[in-house]
Amino acid sequence: MRDVLMPLIEQGKLAQVRNEIIKMNVVDIAQLFEELSQDKIIVIFRLLPKEIAADVFTYLSYEQQQYIIESITDTEIKNIIDDLFLDDTVDLIEEMPANVVKKILKNTSEDKRKLINQFLNYPDNSAGSIMTIEYVDLKKGMTVKQALEHVKKTGVDKETIDVCYVIDKNRILEGIIPIRKLILAEESVIIADIMDTNFISIRTNDDQEKIAALFKKYDLLAMPVVDNENRLVGIITIDDVVDIIEQENTEDFQKMAAIEPSEEEYLKTSVLTLARHRIVWLLILMISATFTGNIIKKFEDVLQSVVVLAAFIPMLMDTGGNAGSQSATLVIRGLALEEIKLKDIAKVIWKELRVSVIVGLILAAVNFIRIYYFETTDIKITTTVCASLFLTVVLAKVVGGVLPIMAKKLKLDPAIMASPLITTIVDAVALMAYFYLAAWILGV
Amino acid sequence: MRDVLMPLIEQGKLAQVRNEIIKMNVVDIAQLFEELSQDKIIVIFRLLPKEIAADVFTYLSYEQQQYIIESITDTEIKNIIDDLFLDDTVDLIEEMPANVVKKILKNTSEDKRKLINQFLNYPDNSAGSIMTIEYVDLKKGMTVKQALEHVKKTGVDKETIDVCYVIDKNRILEGIIPIRKLILAEESVIIADIMDTNFISIRTNDDQEKIAALFKKYDLLAMPVVDNENRLVGIITIDDVVDIIEQENTEDFQKMAAIEPSEEEYLKTSVLTLARHRIVWLLILMISATFTGNIIKKFEDVLQSVVVLAAFIPMLMDTGGNAGSQSATLVIRGLALEEIKLKDIAKVIWKELRVSVIVGLILAAVNFIRIYYFETTDIKITTTVCASLFLTVVLAKVVGGVLPIMAKKLKLDPAIMASPLITTIVDAVALMAYFYLAAWILGV
Repeated sequence: MRDVLMPLIEQGKLAQVRNEIIKMNVVDIAQLFEELSQDKIIVIFRLLPKEIAADVFTYLSYEQQQYIIESITDTEIKNIIDDLFLDDTVDLIEEMPANVVKKILKNTSEDKRKLINQFLNYPDNSAGSIMTIEYVDLKKGMTVKQALEHVKKTGVDKETIDVCYVIDKNRILEGIIPIRKLILAEESVIIADIMDTNFISIRTNDDQEKIAALFKKYDLLAMPVVDNENRLVGIITIDDVVDIIEQENTEDFQKMAAIEPSEEEYLKTSVLTLARHRIVWLLILMISATFTGNIIKKFEDVLQSVVVLAAFIPMLMDTGGNAGSQSATLVIRGLALEEIKLKDIAKVIWKELRVSVIVGLILAAVNFIRIYYFETTDIKITTTVCASLFLTVVLAKVVGGVLPIMAKKLKLDPAIMASPLITTIVDAVALMAYFYLAAWILGV
Repeated sequence: MRDVLMPLIEQGKLAQVRNEIIKMNVVDIAQLFEELSQDKIIVIFRLLPKEIAADVFTYLSYEQQQYIIESITDTEIKNIIDDLFLDDTVDLIEEMPANVVKKILKNTSEDKRKLINQFLNYPDNSAGSIMTIEYVDLKKGMTVKQALEHVKKTGVDKETIDVCYVIDKNRILEGIIPIRKLILAEESVIIADIMDTNFISIRTNDDQEKIAALFKKYDLLAMPVVDNENRLVGIITIDDVVDIIEQENTEDFQKMAAIEPSEEEYLKTSVLTLARHRIVWLLILMISATFTGNIIKKFEDVLQSVVVLAAFIPMLMDTGGNAGSQSATLVIRGLALEEIKLKDIAKVIWKELRVSVIVGLILAAVNFIRIYYFETTDIKITTTVCASLFLTVVLAKVVGGVLPIMAKKLKLDPAIMASPLITTIVDAVALMAYFYLAAWILGV
């Protein structure tokens, strides 16, 4: 498709371009814009039929959205904003610079401006900041026939009609009803008799993590958002939740790698911002590693008399770090997916203890063969290294399994108890064990 | 709810239990079963109204499903299997032991048995193994009125009616039409005129990663699965895709922590299996760390004369490892979300180079102040440590940024190029730089 379109665009055959474009999916059209030169963007955007222009617009990058708004007329802006869902409008306003926001608001109706302001006040990543207001509402006294007529009359501007919401005259949410139930029911049935009153809802201030967990648990397609008086104020749809899930996962990946989480795409983040997100943890961990260094300094005379001991430090540290981060990762992930609960801490310790003994024995045995037979190292040094390795692995796995759960108990994010922090802790203890054992076994 | 139910169950007040249970969401009912003792499970399961029994059943753990099938009569099994969607039946059969599978198949109709066999033959994690066959099919010659009547007649047994599929007499997929469009259209309109012919579909053998990517890209709720002749064979719905997304993320978390990926829950995995999934990478990485040890051995005389050099090894190794895994994590995640493409490799290198210079300078400066002024270390040693730290950070970040992209180029999973492997590589080079610099600056 792209191979056909690009030459047509270059040659300015706009009628043909339009014919090709309207056959495409809006997401693919938006992707096409990424490849256009600036002078072509507005030309092609103006070719889009009115009914898909706003749709394509929501899938464009912020840079392109900004460029388009800066370049088109007020009437054109108004047409787009009228067709955007409220959640997309709010997202747009949050990302645009002040002059563009001004241009957008100038072309927005008074009512919508008020709503936008209200939405901008919800805390970041709260249900209020994610929801949209384009839902279908029904009354419980309606018959199925009346309800379907109402859906037909009002549905065209709604984000979804797959689930409809039953509210009373004060907008208090009384039930939900999937469109499927409406279609399959007899026309004369009363909504009150078939609506689901045992629905899952969420409050405007609830966090997106909770929202994603509920969608996953109950396999939902949409969820109503209510205020403190149980009045329906919006809905959240599954497409937004899929984005939230990926965002929460990205956040965990970042925290587990000792990076301050950010929602910006890597390639679009400035070098300074990237550096800022990384330096804090690096500094903290670097200074923590000083303690490990001090342990070595304390045992300088041991090291001085048997300098070959230093050669096994990297292997001990790395293996300890890896063993610990394996356990930490599994437990952090288990906590995130709610497969591991706080009360499981004893089970986790017992499991990690047994796993670590098996793994530690195998590693120590392989190491023994390698150091003693292949490298013909002194038996006392070999014993010291292998015993330390075993202790390090057991310690690392238990610490790795326990710390994320303890973090969660302390209302911290378990993801910070990942590889970097665990490594730093395990290193210090491992080296202490190593040198004490060395001093004892070697008698220095 | 639980607080009310548990005493009622204990007291055997079954009529009341039933009254409470039918008000609950099926997911919550299933969760309740997790807390029941074995002798109660069958009693309570038999209380469930027929129309929700199968639903509750799909949300139970495999252990409970097995126990129930082993305990109930053939007729009861038949009732459940009849009500299960095909994808859930296939999942069940894949997890149950042979004797239970036999019991299930004995109570399954001939037709369904054939289908099950066909589904079991699709490769693991392929579209064929995930899809289900309970979709609504329409003909393009139908009017909207006829189509809605058809939906009404057949929709009750379908997994979703939110999207309907238009097929010809050979079952070749010609278009899709969301139920929304059917409801909003005039009754006399012909399906062919409003169906979407530019739909996204997938083949039975396509991998689940591709499926998840398409759902995310196009904000889909359901996707048709076709065979090589473009015949419609099934559909995949968003609820399954949400599970796939989490599963793919879990796999990445595990690979990045040097664990062989597994779909089993941590607490339900045996100690031996956990040990097996961890030992291979630990062994590989432990033996790789030997090279690092050999570097230290090679410089034994340098270390012998300035033994304090050993005290900075942990800090250098840890900081290098952390710096590298930060970059690797961001790039691996960017690749997984398709925000970073293979062609971006030069951009990534250039970005990491600049970030690493900033970060490296700050770390080296802080370290200089700490070592030289606070610990009053010799200026030559301080210089050696700080210069090595800077080089290590730059190297770690560039290596961390590049290796995941190279892995993807070689059709390997970028996630293996994470913290553990990067750390091992960076350690070796960092120590080499450290000792060469030391030998040169200190003149030993």
